[in-house]
Amino acid sequence: MKRSLGAKSLLYPTPIVVVGTYDNEGRANAMTVAWVGIVCSQPPCIGISLRKATHTYGNILDRDAFTVSIPTEKHVKEVDYLGIASGRKEDKFSIAGLTAIRSDIVDAPYVKEFPFILECELFQVTEIGLHTQFIGEIKNIKADESILDEKGLPDMGGRFRPLLYAPEIKKYYGMGAMLGNAFSVGKEI
Amino acid sequence: MKRSLGAKSLLYPTPIVVVGTYDNEGRANAMTVAWVGIVCSQPPCIGISLRKATHTYGNILDRDAFTVSIPTEKHVKEVDYLGIASGRKEDKFSIAGLTAIRSDIVDAPYVKEFPFILECELFQVTEIGLHTQFIGEIKNIKADESILDEKGLPDMGGRFRPLLYAPEIKKYYGMGAMLGNAFSVGKEI
Repeated sequence: MKRSLGAKSLLYPTPIVVVGTYDNEGRANAMTVAWVGIVCSQPPCIGISLRKATHTYGNILDRDAFTVSIPTEKHVKEVDYLGIASGRKEDKFSIAGLTAIRSDIVDAPYVKEFPFILECELFQVTEIGLHTQFIGEIKNIKADESILDEKGLPDMGGRFRPLLYAPEIKKYYGMGAMLGNAFSVGKEI
Repeated sequence: MKRSLGAKSLLYPTPIVVVGTYDNEGRANAMTVAWVGIVCSQPPCIGISLRKATHTYGNILDRDAFTVSIPTEKHVKEVDYLGIASGRKEDKFSIAGLTAIRSDIVDAPYVKEFPFILECELFQVTEIGLHTQFIGEIKNIKADESILDEKGLPDMGGRFRPLLYAPEIKKYYGMGAMLGNAFSVGKEI
């Protein structure tokens, strides 16, 4: 039996990422974002949704660029801090003990300590409501050698353990067991 | 040390959902979608990106509505099948052994066997490239009583075990352990 919960922005699980930008004084900022998803394969694009009140919002419009750094289980505290504090008031990289590295591809910094980085150029801006969606074209991905398998792919659930987020419940989770191969297990039906 | 992997549409983990629509003959269709994410809190909106070649693409434009049904670990085969087959050629609900229920809120069907449903009205369409993003306003959420905790929230990782997807690697995963409370653990920094 299903119960109505009303009109809410809930998706389970939700990815959780850290968006890196420079402000107009060249200071690196990092902000945790859960309203994120791939939006296109060709060109490869990712969408992130931000409130106008965030420091990152203005930074992206100034620089036409951002990075997406994917954190792992061991950085859950840093991820949470980067979602609470504002880069307008604090040097968030420094307080979190994280290192801002300037991308050699786009005009934005990424988090050195996080193993998987998307380097994005601003592609399109869509006004929706409280949130504005910034679509970034993914110009390059950088990954730590240490999380890649022998084929050069992320060793998901092994050496690469990204975080999940549950909105409303407001909890972070890790990944669980591999359950099946896509474009494969469904053929049994 | 980071290695460049090139320009690819990769986000880890990626949610995986099933989009329900009616076609112009009133037949229910269900399609698995990984290019999905919440895009706005007010109004609550979700974005799904589809290729024009999909049956679902035309259905949404015809009906101005879709549902998002969130599957769980026990339906990994059905989810994979719904991503391989086309509703133009097959009655996917019937072949997968799933039940299409007409939403009482929007002009679209959802998957009865999946425990968490977003009922969406088409809000905005954004052309990007190979994929078009359909932004749906979430008019209501329906959830199985059996996955809710005593507060009426989804019992994530307990009775509610949604799937994850890893693009490129093409594998499905389950959820892991709870790692911390959001807007809380970061205050220790």
